[in-house]
Amino acid sequence: MNIITSNEGKFKEYKKIFPEARMHNVGYHEIQADTLEEVVEQALITLKEHAPLIIDDSGLFIDEYDGFPGVYSAYVMHTLGCKGILKLMKDADNRNSRFECVIGYMDSTGNIELFKGITDGIITKEIRGTGGFGYDPIFIPVNHEKTFAQITTEEKNKISHRGKAMKALLIDREITR
Amino acid sequence: MNIITSNEGKFKEYKKIFPEARMHNVGYHEIQADTLEEVVEQALITLKEHAPLIIDDSGLFIDEYDGFPGVYSAYVMHTLGCKGILKLMKDADNRNSRFECVIGYMDSTGNIELFKGITDGIITKEIRGTGGFGYDPIFIPVNHEKTFAQITTEEKNKISHRGKAMKALLIDREITR
Repeated sequence: MNIITSNEGKFKEYKKIFPEARMHNVGYHEIQADTLEEVVEQALITLKEHAPLIIDDSGLFIDEYDGFPGVYSAYVMHTLGCKGILKLMKDADNRNSRFECVIGYMDSTGNIELFKGITDGIITKEIRGTGGFGYDPIFIPVNHEKTFAQITTEEKNKISHRGKAMKALLIDREITR
Repeated sequence: MNIITSNEGKFKEYKKIFPEARMHNVGYHEIQADTLEEVVEQALITLKEHAPLIIDDSGLFIDEYDGFPGVYSAYVMHTLGCKGILKLMKDADNRNSRFECVIGYMDSTGNIELFKGITDGIITKEIRGTGGFGYDPIFIPVNHEKTFAQITTEEKNKISHRGKAMKALLIDREITR
């Protein structure tokens, strides 16, 4: 199975669930859209020659700012970073947010399926932890006390948006571990 | 000439330079890319049936944040707004920024040309003025004292990124006013 990504942190999480996964770093266009589903569906169409394959688009959606940075989370990570998000959230009473992950799976015949995982949580007031990647150091899932950057990859996979989407794919496709 | 846009403020500026312009609100995909040029070129390809046409992608690029919000300026306007930008810039010493506009022109035979205008300026510390649209109330062009939201459309067209790009198109295509 080809996991199409340039993100090492993301691939590490896949590797725990799909030991046979291969990282396949192929560039592809993502469209500007309102939802991760649209981005993933449009991208899959352009990647047919690499099937069977998995792509994954994920984002942090902050209630206080209408879901910002959402589908542009990667870009915002590279420009504002966690520090920029903390500045925006400095005086915010509503710190609710969610991580979403949409996995796009294309089988060897070109059939497409999407799998989604959502994890609700809150934005911290400071950076906590050095694990994970992206916004992990500023996100605490609901009913937990540590950020995604303060737990192991195995622990994160159990509760994370991506973990949930991967499990949905695993069950649906009956891909054995 | 069809101006493909859903932005009334933008169309108003075109109408001053091209009185015969028609606003044509057709949805099209914009890709996620590093430059306005890439976004415009990819979009033009999908709009061939509407030629001759003009599309325009513009953005505010802030030095302090590696060019954020850049090609995602419209999305960031709808989520963070000018107030969010001012929060991010609260303690910033470097307030330099620039507005860029890339006009994509496709003639009736499908030939493509791009025209670019850039206006350097600084980000204000507070919202000033009610004219214009988008980030106009927080942007003062170099060697000026008023924001784009404190001057008329005619004055803005003389110095703005879009005004410069429109004039480059006008001269090149010898389109009479």
